[in-house]
Amino acid sequence: MSKKILVINGPNLNLLGTREKDVYGTVTLGEIASMMNKEASGLGMDLDFIQTNHEGEIIDRIHSARGVYAVLIINAGAYTHYSIAIRDALKAVEIPAIEVHLSNIHAREEFRSKSVIAPVCCGQISGFGADSYLLALKAAVNL
Amino acid sequence: MSKKILVINGPNLNLLGTREKDVYGTVTLGEIASMMNKEASGLGMDLDFIQTNHEGEIIDRIHSARGVYAVLIINAGAYTHYSIAIRDALKAVEIPAIEVHLSNIHAREEFRSKSVIAPVCCGQISGFGADSYLLALKAAVNL
Amino acid sequence: MSKKILVINGPNLNLLGTREKDVYGTVTLGEIASMMNKEASGLGMDLDFIQTNHEGEIIDRIHSARGVYAVLIINAGAYTHYSIAIRDALKAVEIPAIEVHLSNIHAREEFRSKSVIAPVCCGQISGFGADSYLLALKAAVNL
Amino acid sequence: MSKKILVINGPNLNLLGTREKDVYGTVTLGEIASMMNKEASGLGMDLDFIQTNHEGEIIDRIHSARGVYAVLIINAGAYTHYSIAIRDALKAVEIPAIEVHLSNIHAREEFRSKSVIAPVCCGQISGFGADSYLLALKAAVNL
Amino acid sequence: MSKKILVINGPNLNLLGTREKDVYGTVTLGEIASMMNKEASGLGMDLDFIQTNHEGEIIDRIHSARGVYAVLIINAGAYTHYSIAIRDALKAVEIPAIEVHLSNIHAREEFRSKSVIAPVCCGQISGFGADSYLLALKAAVNL
Amino acid sequence: MSKKILVINGPNLNLLGTREKDVYGTVTLGEIASMMNKEASGLGMDLDFIQTNHEGEIIDRIHSARGVYAVLIINAGAYTHYSIAIRDALKAVEIPAIEVHLSNIHAREEFRSKSVIAPVCCGQISGFGADSYLLALKAAVNL
Amino acid sequence: MSKKILVINGPNLNLLGTREKDVYGTVTLGEIASMMNKEASGLGMDLDFIQTNHEGEIIDRIHSARGVYAVLIINAGAYTHYSIAIRDALKAVEIPAIEVHLSNIHAREEFRSKSVIAPVCCGQISGFGADSYLLALKAAVNL
Amino acid sequence: MSKKILVINGPNLNLLGTREKDVYGTVTLGEIASMMNKEASGLGMDLDFIQTNHEGEIIDRIHSARGVYAVLIINAGAYTHYSIAIRDALKAVEIPAIEVHLSNIHAREEFRSKSVIAPVCCGQISGFGADSYLLALKAAVNL
Amino acid sequence: MSKKILVINGPNLNLLGTREKDVYGTVTLGEIASMMNKEASGLGMDLDFIQTNHEGEIIDRIHSARGVYAVLIINAGAYTHYSIAIRDALKAVEIPAIEVHLSNIHAREEFRSKSVIAPVCCGQISGFGADSYLLALKAAVNL
Amino acid sequence: MSKKILVINGPNLNLLGTREKDVYGTVTLGEIASMMNKEASGLGMDLDFIQTNHEGEIIDRIHSARGVYAVLIINAGAYTHYSIAIRDALKAVEIPAIEVHLSNIHAREEFRSKSVIAPVCCGQISGFGADSYLLALKAAVNL
Amino acid sequence: MSKKILVINGPNLNLLGTREKDVYGTVTLGEIASMMNKEASGLGMDLDFIQTNHEGEIIDRIHSARGVYAVLIINAGAYTHYSIAIRDALKAVEIPAIEVHLSNIHAREEFRSKSVIAPVCCGQISGFGADSYLLALKAAVNL
Amino acid sequence: MSKKILVINGPNLNLLGTREKDVYGTVTLGEIASMMNKEASGLGMDLDFIQTNHEGEIIDRIHSARGVYAVLIINAGAYTHYSIAIRDALKAVEIPAIEVHLSNIHAREEFRSKSVIAPVCCGQISGFGADSYLLALKAAVNL
Repeated sequence: MSKKILVINGPNLNLLGTREKDVYGTVTLGEIASMMNKEASGLGMDLDFIQTNHEGEIIDRIHSARGVYAVLIINAGAYTHYSIAIRDALKAVEIPAIEVHLSNIHAREEFRSKSVIAPVCCGQISGFGADSYLLALKAAVNL
Repeated sequence: MSKKILVINGPNLNLLGTREKDVYGTVTLGEIASMMNKEASGLGMDLDFIQTNHEGEIIDRIHSARGVYAVLIINAGAYTHYSIAIRDALKAVEIPAIEVHLSNIHAREEFRSKSVIAPVCCGQISGFGADSYLLALKAAVNL
Repeated sequence: MSKKILVINGPNLNLLGTREKDVYGTVTLGEIASMMNKEASGLGMDLDFIQTNHEGEIIDRIHSARGVYAVLIINAGAYTHYSIAIRDALKAVEIPAIEVHLSNIHAREEFRSKSVIAPVCCGQISGFGADSYLLALKAAVNL
Repeated sequence: MSKKILVINGPNLNLLGTREKDVYGTVTLGEIASMMNKEASGLGMDLDFIQTNHEGEIIDRIHSARGVYAVLIINAGAYTHYSIAIRDALKAVEIPAIEVHLSNIHAREEFRSKSVIAPVCCGQISGFGADSYLLALKAAVNL
Repeated sequence: MSKKILVINGPNLNLLGTREKDVYGTVTLGEIASMMNKEASGLGMDLDFIQTNHEGEIIDRIHSARGVYAVLIINAGAYTHYSIAIRDALKAVEIPAIEVHLSNIHAREEFRSKSVIAPVCCGQISGFGADSYLLALKAAVNL
Repeated sequence: MSKKILVINGPNLNLLGTREKDVYGTVTLGEIASMMNKEASGLGMDLDFIQTNHEGEIIDRIHSARGVYAVLIINAGAYTHYSIAIRDALKAVEIPAIEVHLSNIHAREEFRSKSVIAPVCCGQISGFGADSYLLALKAAVNL
Repeated sequence: MSKKILVINGPNLNLLGTREKDVYGTVTLGEIASMMNKEASGLGMDLDFIQTNHEGEIIDRIHSARGVYAVLIINAGAYTHYSIAIRDALKAVEIPAIEVHLSNIHAREEFRSKSVIAPVCCGQISGFGADSYLLALKAAVNL
Repeated sequence: MSKKILVINGPNLNLLGTREKDVYGTVTLGEIASMMNKEASGLGMDLDFIQTNHEGEIIDRIHSARGVYAVLIINAGAYTHYSIAIRDALKAVEIPAIEVHLSNIHAREEFRSKSVIAPVCCGQISGFGADSYLLALKAAVNL
Repeated sequence: MSKKILVINGPNLNLLGTREKDVYGTVTLGEIASMMNKEASGLGMDLDFIQTNHEGEIIDRIHSARGVYAVLIINAGAYTHYSIAIRDALKAVEIPAIEVHLSNIHAREEFRSKSVIAPVCCGQISGFGADSYLLALKAAVNL
Repeated sequence: MSKKILVINGPNLNLLGTREKDVYGTVTLGEIASMMNKEASGLGMDLDFIQTNHEGEIIDRIHSARGVYAVLIINAGAYTHYSIAIRDALKAVEIPAIEVHLSNIHAREEFRSKSVIAPVCCGQISGFGADSYLLALKAAVNL
Repeated sequence: MSKKILVINGPNLNLLGTREKDVYGTVTLGEIASMMNKEASGLGMDLDFIQTNHEGEIIDRIHSARGVYAVLIINAGAYTHYSIAIRDALKAVEIPAIEVHLSNIHAREEFRSKSVIAPVCCGQISGFGADSYLLALKAAVNL
Repeated sequence: MSKKILVINGPNLNLLGTREKDVYGTVTLGEIASMMNKEASGLGMDLDFIQTNHEGEIIDRIHSARGVYAVLIINAGAYTHYSIAIRDALKAVEIPAIEVHLSNIHAREEFRSKSVIAPVCCGQISGFGADSYLLALKAAVNL
């Protein structure tokens, strides 16, 4: 049976490829989903890919992942920096989670260098644009 | 006519009884709802019991509580520590609100010891596990 | 055999219902005692209810509670903020104690937000006026 | 063709005119909408006026404003103080935005004096009650 | 009908005139009572004069002063520096109170310079020996 | 004529031998009284041994000791750390006083290392358990 | 023509799999090279894999990579924390570089949490053990 | 067989009874020795009593006490405040030691309130003049 | 006999003229060597010009300069900021050394403003691009 | 079979005996090697003696010492103060190491008093010039 | 003529091998003396080995060493940390002195890490147990 | 009858004129004694002049000065900086004492600027070399 992965995208990521291209690149989120799906097939994995601007929705999806998904890949967007509620959700469900970022968060504004969810994730991949996601998918194989 | 009470549960409380049992105990939120409903009947009160992981939903529910509910019982979960929006909602509707916590929030991580909603609630009950809710229900009778 | 509860009221609480009504309400301490007695009967509990303005008397009563009472409910009034002697008494007798306050001590003068007895109590109920006591009584059932 | 303006109101502003009148005045949000529509006509502008308590919904609306509205007028309510996600949304869509507040946020509680969205808006108007909105409309003419 | 005044003397003042005469002088508390009684008659006032070493007793006496005395003159002795319970008692009965001290408490050990009851008294007279009491009596005429 | 000694025990010392035995040992206060009485007889001294949890009572007893007792032996318990009133009483009566402690107060919680009565006692004996009292008795012979 | 990748391993990494296994795991550097070579073939890439304990050698190799390699993957070991010379070399050659770490460097000694080379790399992958390298290889495909 | 006690007196104590009588009293060290000898006989103990102004001599005597004396009584005089060497000696021989002081060291110059040897002694008796020694002798019985 | 000069260039300087031209200019290291050789001839001096990325190699070359060269001109690149080893080498050989930098190291990143080799050089010339070298050559005439 | 020792000398030590003779003496490194070899023979030990100015070379030699040498004697020269890479190498190979210095590093510039390798060595010998090495050799006998 | 060495041992070192063996080992001072004597003979040196607990005696011995001994080996024990008098003595006689310590003084209580005599000694050997002394003897040969 | 003076010299002063001549000059202690004797005769005073390295001996001599000498002149050497025991001795005998130093102790190492004996001496003369002693002698005339 294939391994199921849930990819969660937080606020503003739906605009990917259309906003601040110098920071985030030109690939759209839909294209990332396609790439991931294709890659997942090759890896014998099943992928669900969601985006929402709602903090609560992210928490809902993390909760309903229990018993369904083997690994979570999460780009919490700006919530990365202040959502203790998402942190609590990730900790509660106890599914291995990989934190991804399109840009290198350590090379931008000071307030973006702190992730409140990092302490409850197993690893972090940042700075590779859309590829950060694909790499996380591959990292998920061995978790 | 019976008095109506709205019990609002914030993020991650739906997982109660299934996560971090050493901190939060084994009783589920459903069981707390049942206990509260039974207790409410005995007290001639009508109970609505909701849980949501959405900050905005909590605010909507607080707003629509005006003219419908006599008292709010709220466990805002992690939002307790940063949602000024929920604080403003509670203050605006002027329905008596009771803040409850399963664990003693003054005896955990430093960042959990601060409640931004406390100053706009009439009282706080913390440290009695599921009983914190039942006690709040009883407190609601006279508010 | 019924469970025995001792309710201890500290300094100035005898004036309840007649002083600073905007802060403490209009119910008198005698009325609280009546309400608690009635409630206790219903819960199959036996209640003793005392008030004293004397720090030493509070300590005496805590001591003599050993072997007689199953739970202590204490509103130490202003002694809450500086009586290490009462704290030592509560710790010494090892009877479960519930700290109650009529007003929300976290929403008043800074010096009232600190309780030196809190660390030796199991929980705290504050802000419900006379009801804080009845709630404590109910909380006592499961201690 | 007339210039289109989107006015976004955040959490608790739907209660305007009915809550904390000493702080926010007695004008309702509906009345503000009417005043703005009238003013907009005179200025040859077209106006859409919305309110939501959801951080995610605000982000959604900012996103869908692209290609439709020439200017955003936003009163983010309490989210003003911590929503980096709304900040990112405003920055991403690159539509000129004007931040408005009914009360002077710099003359209230300390925590209300900081706006995380200000750095991505073109300007801020605060402290003129309902007039803050009308002034913003006038400011929008030249953006 | 004459105005009734209660003069309350706290811990160790019974020893006045017999202890630490360099600090407190040689007049006894009995002599102060006599001087005050004589002065009171001339002012058309009635005087009760008590002393106790018990914090609780002071509180008891303040309580029973309600409806009987028009003004309280209090020298709380060492309790001046830490008895929030006496402070609360004075505030509760709402009888105008005048704080007196024989010596200048601001010119002695650091720990004696702070009075926790001062904020609930109408005034403080300190440093005039026995005259501090007589001055308080004169001040009481207009309260 | 025999020399009279008053031994004053403050709050919670009546529980000696029954509480926190790891800190205070298993000897009871009654046993200490017996040991002291026996020792006193041998030394041709008359002993009164009291315990009270009341700060005011301690002060009363210190006062009434004048002209009756030649020496005071005092273990003020928790009052040691904040009762300026007891300190003033000891200073006022000018009867030699000996401060005793069962445990070494300099080797416990920070707040217990400070004695506000020490500066008005002639000496301090700490760390010898029940023997601290017997040693004080012997010290009293020559005071 | 296949894309050429240079993998640079800094000081002490040659001991991988044989030292401090609790921190770095049991896989050897040779095994990582094999895994990478195999993976590279599959990706149509050519791989050179070197290890040196010499700071100057690392710089030489970075320089001579110009015109030869399309991407650098670098684990600078302890030099990560102080070699400004390696940082300058990476910046100078303008070949995209990926920083990798076996362990999560943000969860160890304070002095290891700072990377002086991070600001000149395009991304960082940390915390996935040997997989960190394979993921970097995959990331290299699109750089 | 009788218990042997060594009493060690440090610098300047030979002047006892002849210097600063207001601080140290009029009894001479010789008289203290006599009193102790007499007392020791009554207690079935054997006493050696020495005085020296030499730090090294104190250490010598502590060393040679091993296997000979059951208890050490030490008044290290001014060395109390800085002799780490004496502290090391006391710790090394592992004979129970009682620290004595003629005056109350806690009621004098700030630098005298610190004892570097206290942490390696079992108890401290201070403030009873010559009697501090006799009391220590009695305390020694039960060590 | 002509005076011999050794010009030592540290890490990354071999890339001069090909990297970060906005900071370092377009002149190559070879061109600087040519300019210097020409200038040296005119001044009757003999020049050797080397570059290496190895800290150890720089030290080796400084060592072998003894007895051969009259003056050292050194641009230690990034090693300038942390190589105490190069500092020691310069100090050991006791050949007058001139520190040069193309850019003004005091007007760049904070970490570049500190030179650990400066204290053992006779002077520093920085900020004149290639001219810094020529100026050093002229300065060498009088050393 | 003889015990094998590796002596590692860091940067600038090759100049020994020819530079800063007031600080380091006149013995050359070659002479130290000879002395050590001779001494080693006498002690039945086998000695390898190396010097390098290269940080990486030091690490290489530490690594290749595994399984060959029983003890390392290291004078890391200036690298002593900043090479975390050498520290990591010493820790990784787990061969007992003795830190030596020709001069007394505690009596020179402040920055030389700190050794980053000290925490992973068993002992330190400093200040004896060439003899520091011979002493380390003797110390090595019992490690 | 043989070279004469004086080995000075300070306070409490006579107890070596019998006290705190976990810190100082089981070898006695006598055994160290024997080992040193034997070693000294072999080295053609004459050894005097003393121990004293007296600071003044240490100074006397340092003084009288002039013209008699060629080298001093000193373990000043606890005096290491505060005896400026011994420091001055060592500096005054200008006989080369070697500071030795059994344990690594840099790895114990903070107050033991500072040596006031180190700046006037030629070297320090610490951390080799009894061997520290033998090594010092060998170091003495060439001083 | 002539006035008798005792001159006490502390540790290392016996080496005067033979050590650190740049700091202390070339005059020997014997020469100072001669100069003082001659001066004393002229002033009609009798002089005793001693030196010792023992703190305890200095104390012994101060003690035995009572009833014999009218004034003490003391150069306590390094003990000046830490011997509270000598301070106590000087205070105890109540003979006027003059503190002298050859060098200006306030213009040397920081630790030499503090004298613990100064507070019990009538004056301090420092920095005049041998003259400091002669000046003290003259100052003694009027004590």
